[in-house]
Formats: sequence, C-alpha cells, structure tokens
Amino acid sequence: MISWKNLDTLAAFKKLSGMKDRVDLPKAMAGEVGAQRVAKYCVPMAGGLVYNYAAKAVDDEVLSVLCALADEAQLAEKYRALLEGEIINTGEKRRVLHQLTRGQQGADVVADGVNKREFYVAQQQKAADFARKVHAGEIANAAGEKFTTVVQIGIGGSDLGPRAMYLALEQWARQCGALKMEARFISNVDPDDAASVLQGIDVAHALFVLVSKSGTTLETLTNEAFVKNALKGAGLDASKHMVAVTSETSPLAKSSDYLAAFFMDDYIGGRYSSTSCVGGVVLSLAFGPEVFARFLNGAAEADALAKNPDPMKNPAMLDALIGVYERNVQGWPATAVLPYSQALSRFPAHLQQLDMESNGKSVNRFGEPVGYATGPVIFGEPGTNGQHSFYQLLHQGTDILPLQFVGFRENQLGVDVDIQGSTSQQKLCANVAAQIMAFACGKADENPNKAFAGGRPSSIIVGDRLTPESLGALLSHFENKVMFQGFCWNVNSFDQEGVQLGKVLAKRVLAHDTDGALKAYSDLLNI
Amino acid sequence: MISWKNLDTLAAFKKLSGMKDRVDLPKAMAGEVGAQRVAKYCVPMAGGLVYNYAAKAVDDEVLSVLCALADEAQLAEKYRALLEGEIINTGEKRRVLHQLTRGQQGADVVADGVNKREFYVAQQQKAADFARKVHAGEIANAAGEKFTTVVQIGIGGSDLGPRAMYLALEQWARQCGALKMEARFISNVDPDDAASVLQGIDVAHALFVLVSKSGTTLETLTNEAFVKNALKGAGLDASKHMVAVTSETSPLAKSSDYLAAFFMDDYIGGRYSSTSCVGGVVLSLAFGPEVFARFLNGAAEADALAKNPDPMKNPAMLDALIGVYERNVQGWPATAVLPYSQALSRFPAHLQQLDMESNGKSVNRFGEPVGYATGPVIFGEPGTNGQHSFYQLLHQGTDILPLQFVGFRENQLGVDVDIQGSTSQQKLCANVAAQIMAFACGKADENPNKAFAGGRPSSIIVGDRLTPESLGALLSHFENKVMFQGFCWNVNSFDQEGVQLGKVLAKRVLAHDTDGALKAYSDLLNI
Repeated sequence: MISWKNLDTLAAFKKLSGMKDRVDLPKAMAGEVGAQRVAKYCVPMAGGLVYNYAAKAVDDEVLSVLCALADEAQLAEKYRALLEGEIINTGEKRRVLHQLTRGQQGADVVADGVNKREFYVAQQQKAADFARKVHAGEIANAAGEKFTTVVQIGIGGSDLGPRAMYLALEQWARQCGALKMEARFISNVDPDDAASVLQGIDVAHALFVLVSKSGTTLETLTNEAFVKNALKGAGLDASKHMVAVTSETSPLAKSSDYLAAFFMDDYIGGRYSSTSCVGGVVLSLAFGPEVFARFLNGAAEADALAKNPDPMKNPAMLDALIGVYERNVQGWPATAVLPYSQALSRFPAHLQQLDMESNGKSVNRFGEPVGYATGPVIFGEPGTNGQHSFYQLLHQGTDILPLQFVGFRENQLGVDVDIQGSTSQQKLCANVAAQIMAFACGKADENPNKAFAGGRPSSIIVGDRLTPESLGALLSHFENKVMFQGFCWNVNSFDQEGVQLGKVLAKRVLAHDTDGALKAYSDLLNI
Repeated sequence: MISWKNLDTLAAFKKLSGMKDRVDLPKAMAGEVGAQRVAKYCVPMAGGLVYNYAAKAVDDEVLSVLCALADEAQLAEKYRALLEGEIINTGEKRRVLHQLTRGQQGADVVADGVNKREFYVAQQQKAADFARKVHAGEIANAAGEKFTTVVQIGIGGSDLGPRAMYLALEQWARQCGALKMEARFISNVDPDDAASVLQGIDVAHALFVLVSKSGTTLETLTNEAFVKNALKGAGLDASKHMVAVTSETSPLAKSSDYLAAFFMDDYIGGRYSSTSCVGGVVLSLAFGPEVFARFLNGAAEADALAKNPDPMKNPAMLDALIGVYERNVQGWPATAVLPYSQALSRFPAHLQQLDMESNGKSVNRFGEPVGYATGPVIFGEPGTNGQHSFYQLLHQGTDILPLQFVGFRENQLGVDVDIQGSTSQQKLCANVAAQIMAFACGKADENPNKAFAGGRPSSIIVGDRLTPESLGALLSHFENKVMFQGFCWNVNSFDQEGVQLGKVLAKRVLAHDTDGALKAYSDLLNI
C-alpha cells in the first residue's frame, strides 16, 4: 500500500537532518583513503556509463540513512505504480507513461481502451516508415527532389529536449555516416528566431515538423504561420513541406495542411517527451530510425535499472537521494551541470527545464504547502568553457553549490591533435579530473586570494563515448532522478500550473484589456 | 580620501538590514498605485534604454537608505579612481582600464610611459584599417580571393563576450546590409568543437583570430594547432589565414605565424574585453569598423552616466544597490537574466561570466574573509523560451529569485506575421509585461496548484530596438553594475585566482604526476 507523505514526516529524514556537515571532504578525499572512495563510491549505469559519487559529501552512515529514506518514502513502489499506469499526475488526473515509449517495465497499461505501449510503438513505426521514405526520396518536394533539412517548430519540451539530443548526436552521426538530414529548431515567438533559421536554410528542400500537443500553443502556431508565409513567398505549397506531431484530439490531427500526423497523448509531459514522437520524428529524420531505436534502448536499460529498490545499485535513485540531502540538510540552493563534451552543449538547458519545471513546486500532491525546500536552480555550460567563466564563484564564492560532471574517455569525431605531449581529449579529461579534486580538497596558500577552502562536492558520470545508447541512458537517468526527488518531496513532478498565469495575462495585454501597472508596462513596451 | 570598508561595517547597511520584507509587492503593484510605480521607478539609461524597477521589492525609504549606502561606500569616488588609473585590481597590482577602450571619462591615464587611451585607440585604428583591407580584398587568401568568414579562437572572456555581441548584432547587420563576414567561434578544448566549426565553413576563405593575452592559454593554443593542421591538410598556408590578439610581451606578438597582431594589456580583464581588440577585431571584420564604433559609443555613454553620484540618476549604481539589498538583506541566492530577444540568446552566458567571475569571492580586497554573501548565481535563457521551461520554479518554487528582464519594442529583422490579431513582436512584448505582473502580484485560486503567491521581484530594461548603440549601453550597464557591487562587498572584482588550482592539477594529470584520488579519477577517465 503506497502512502504519500511529506519528507519532513519521515523518521529517516529526521535522522538525516541531524547529519549536517558530517563529512570533511578535503580529508575524506585525501591520500589513499580518497583513492579508495573513488573505487568504492561508484555504481554502474545503463549504456556503459558509471555514476561516481566519491566526491559527494556523504559517508557510509549518511548513505545508510538515505537507503532507509528510500525505503520509508517507498520510492521503488511509487516508481512501479507509475510504470503500471497509476494516476501519478494527480493535479491533472493523468497517468505518467513516458517510459512506455522506450520499453515496458511492468504489466500492460491499458488506457482509453488502448494498450499504450502498442500505441507508442505504432507511432514510432509510422515515424520510422515516414523517415525511410523521405530518405529514399519517395516522399519529396514538389520538384521530386529529396528533402535535406528538417526544421522542428516547437517550444519548451518540444524544443529543448529534442534540440539537446540532436546536438548530442550530430557530430557522432556525421562521423559514422548516419547523418541523413541536418536539423534546425524554431522556438521563440520573437520573429527574429524564425527569420534567422529560415535565412540559413534552403526552404525548397526543408521539411518542417510542427509540434504542439494541444494544437493551440501560441508561439508554435505563430511560427507555423511565419514559416508558411515564407514557403508561400518562395512559391512552395506549405502542406507538402510540413508534418504535425500532436494529440489525436487536436485540431492539427486530421488537417490537410500536413503531409502526415504523428500522435502523442496527455500521459507524456513536454519535458519527458524526447523519446516520444516529439523527439522521434525529428531524430528519425535526422539520423534514421535505427539510431533512434538505439537511443531508446539506452533509455529503456536505465529505466529497468531504476526499478531496483536498493539505492546502492540504482544510480538514479541514489543521485536523487544525495540531492535531497544536499538540498534539505545541507541547504544548498543550486546545482551546476558541467558536461565535458561539446556535444552536450544544450544538455544543461534540457535538464534545467526537466528539473526546475518538474520540482519547482511549493505545495505537495494534496495541494498543501510544504515546509521544506523543493527543486533547486539548475544551470550549466560545457567544460572546459565554464572553467574560464563562472567556476571562479564555484571555487571561491560564499555559497557552496553541488556539481554534476559528465565526461567521456573518447571524443565523437575521432579527430585530434597532440600538443605538448597530450591530445585535446586527454586535456579535456585531465581537466575534469583536476576540477573534481580542486573542488573537493582545495589548497592552502599564504595568499588568501589564492587559497581554496575545498569541501565543494561533485559527482561524475563517466562513459567511453557519447553514443545513441549512452545518450538515452543519460536522459533517462535524469528523468528518473527528478521523479524520485519529486517522490521524496511529495510533489507532483508532472504538472506545470506555474506557467498558466502569464499566458492568461499576455492574452489580456494583446486584447488591450488591461489597467493599472499591467497597462503601464504595456504602454512602456508600446503594445 | 577613499576608504575600503566591508559592507557590514557601514552604518547604512546596518539600517538596511532592518528593512527585510518591507515591501508587500502584490499590494504595491496593484491598481493605480502600481501604475504610478511603473511611471515613477524608471530611470533613463544610455543608448535610448530605460531601467524600470517598479516591480522590485523596494520603496522610497529603502531607496533612500540605498542612496546613503552609495554615499558611505564611496561608490562614485571609487569609480572615479578606477577611471583615472588607480590600482583597483589590488591582488594583481593592476589598473582597471577597460572603459578607456571606448572613451575617456577622467584625466589622462599614463602607464608604462604610454597614454593608455591613445594606445587603445591606436589598436582600434589598426584593427579598423585591417578590416577595411580585408573587406576590400586588399588582404586576401593565396588565390587572391576575399575572406568570407572570420573564426575567433579563444576561451572565457575571449569567447563569451565577443560571441554574445556578434549574435546580438548578426541579424540586425544582415537586415541593414552591414554583415561583411559571418563569424564563428572555437573555444572548448574538446576537439569536437573545433572539428565541428571547421566542417561547417569554407576554410580556404576563412580568417582566424587567435585571442590569448598571455599567448599561453592551453585550450586556445591547442585549438590553434588543430586549425593549423586543418589548413595544412587543405593545402593552405596557415600564416596567411591567421591574426593574433595578444599582449605586446606575449610570444605571439612578433611571430611570423600571423598576418597581423593587435594588442591588449594587463589592465583589461578577459570578461571586460569585448570593447578592446578582443571584441574589436572580430566585430570590425564581421560588421565593419563603423558599426563597432557605434557599439563603443553606446558603452561610453553608459560609462559617463555611471559617474553620477546620485543613484537615482545612475541606473548601473541603482541596479547594483538593489541587488545588494536582495542578496544581503533578503538573502536571495540567484538571479535570472531573461532577455525577450532571440538576438540576446548568449547574453546571459556572458553575464554569467562577468558577474560570477568578478564577484564570486570570499575574501575582501585585503585578503580577509567576509562575513556576508557576495556574488549570486546568474543564469538565464531568452523569453519566451524560458516561460516554457524553468519559469515554473520561478513562479511557484520554494525559493524567491530576483529577475532581470530585457525587452525591445521592435524586432531586428523587421519581418513579422499577424496571427490572431497581433504580430509576433507584440506577442513577445505582451508576454514580458504579463510575466512581470504575474511574478509581482500572483493570483489567488481555490486550487492551490493554480495559486501564485506573487512577491517575486523583477526589473526590466526597455529599448526601441537592439542596435550597436543600445547593445554597447547594455554591456556597459552590467559591467558597471558588477563593479559597483564589488565596491559594496569590498572584494576585488578584477582578478580570478579561483581558476588557477584546476589548471595546476590538470597539468599534473597530463604529466602522470598524480597519486591518491587524483590518480584514481585519471584512471577512471583513461588518461
């Protein structure tokens, strides 16, 4: 029997609360003891990755209480309930089924009279068939020429996740000959966004993927109109250049304005939709359906691993629990995500949405205010770039911020140079190893400007190479981490009511139905 | 006589500390009172911009104490001392002269026997002459063909600022015919970064700008070698495709490996160098020297405005003071920068470096630990994209984060569509107006999931259009804001010792001179 309880009512959390500042990280990470931690505090992930938490400010006792917390908070049971189709998104009274887009971890889920796994697979097949026909030139432009570019039109989860995934695999695909079409993305309602993407492509050979679950997202429909104008201006028939990804009940679903329509449903939130058709259509077009299937396999493997009720063997659960310790016991307000891989340049932006939109809540799943901090601020940039930017504050600022590194032993393109006795890839890896130790242990110095207190915790996810499988595993790891944290905080991680009020007020501004300060701002902006 | 005192020793700060949670923002911003605030709490900036702080949680009494604080902390005097060449960067014993790259706000500054304003202007002229010759085809590739692309190789301040400025003006320049050359940027030591930039350009017509003040930045020299390999592989003479931006004493300064060298000096930190040759060469090549000069004029106008000792007429000083109130009295840990302009997509990344690297310090300028919070976390993405991402947490999360909006009445490209009775640009502006009010006032709702507490403060910078002048003003505004905050916190905002330890340790890893946990991480990463 699952019971949904606030974090601060759990006995394990009360115990944990007494364990603040327990670990002296510079000491714990020094010498051979430190080396032993690196070997011991390491757990396999899916996709050939490992999660190493040696430089986190935890010890066996903290971990043991975190395990008790996982048990008391029924994390594994709640995940199983989610996998089997219970109404976990209670606010919107919806199931949460994004895992079904990449595998089936529990019993069949039947909703609205349909086996949902079969539904998602059928949509994937449809997208795969469509992509193959586009690649073969069977679906082509009016002149019978192949489409060479795919442009996704969407915002939020229809943009950030798919864009981050595309960028993560673009160079890998180029290197191994899997890049079938280049992808571009239009998201912002700022008309300069669409205009600048359009001027950089050959519209006569471009296929547009319009993504809107409801079919009513204002930004997306506006950008669709913008694109249609441009196609018309180029003498092209827009309906031969555009497909839709939407729900079956949306006005877009059966419109003759699109070459094809691919379906999602209300059981997959935007920020969890990269493995649904929202990511599937654009990624299958860009890289081919086989690469997309490999990406799904990596995610499914991570989903399976996340079922283990033992946090010490469940990296997503463990990562979540350590994060709760850092947020609610240590009191740290923000986390930096620092991938040492240029291909992951927009992965932090995806995680920013995933985490902050899921767990940035002040009421629990029953609508009652919670008396503790929930989701932290998430930000980040690729290393080594960040080292020459905001790392100063991370090392010597007045706040401690936990860090999440990601690193790979090999680069994607396989091109490199040897300078001063090492390759670029070796320099990249040397930097991430060095940073972890610099943050953890610091350094004494007579000059206080050059002294580092250390005690700044981090974890690192390490893999051989960023591939479709490891990317899928990485994506799913963080989705599941965020879900487990939501369970700990007893919030609904699957709605986003906080975005509604702004929409309502923006409509009033556009209708000139304003007074007071809203009117004053509208005047200031000449609306 | 200037005296450098810690914030918590100032009488005005003690008074300010008693003014926590003083303003009921939902009430203050409601009805006609709110409209009056929008009209009243608004100060002109340079470049035709205004800084509107009506939705900040301040009132006349708080502002009056902030004015007293500015006076007591001698903000105007300290800025004047900086402008006149005093050693403000005490840790490194250096003057701070970036303002001299765009104008002269005080007496002549002579250093190392040179009038520094004349030195910077001479370098600008050299860059302008060089750019004009490239544009005219007088400086061309070996085949006598014009260069069409400029590629900046640099990291940190040699990358983030110039890249953000280029992106900010690229579409504007395209629209008005000022785009002379497209620019690209290589920064990360990840070899996939350089490889992917190189595969996207025509190297035979590319001119590379190598930027490293010391001439020893490892990432930059590695990427230079990578690029030279590629040029050689394409049968090209690298020395005919590359210029250097460096200090006069660097090994790059007189090397025959470069077509030309342009000089900076130790008085300009990387993150403050966009208006020096670090930004000047690439931006003059991209847009022409006249556009770069307009950008400098906007910055100079803002620098002049920042001299006003009255914070109520000095937007950079006022912004800084309100930020100190939010950080040190309200206790808010992070600030989001939210430009409603796609062209400013990387402006938050620049501000992230500018602010966090400048003020992420724990010791004062005498090396003594400070007993209060200094620089906050800075992050952001363009609106409306952020609205569909992390705004959920900003609206309904458990932490309050102050927000900095930026908006323009017109877009850059002048292309737009009218959908549902409004243009995209109107929708964009309506959204930012709506968000400010939603954050400030919130909304009651029977359903607690849909209730917004409000009381989430923001300010907005508004202009007609993002142009070279307004961009320069925006850049300088934030540089001066960060400087004034550094003065308040009594930290040295112009060094960055926090980045050194990682470099030292990375060298040890590459030399295989490691033991303990550092060796264990090196092994984990197969270095």
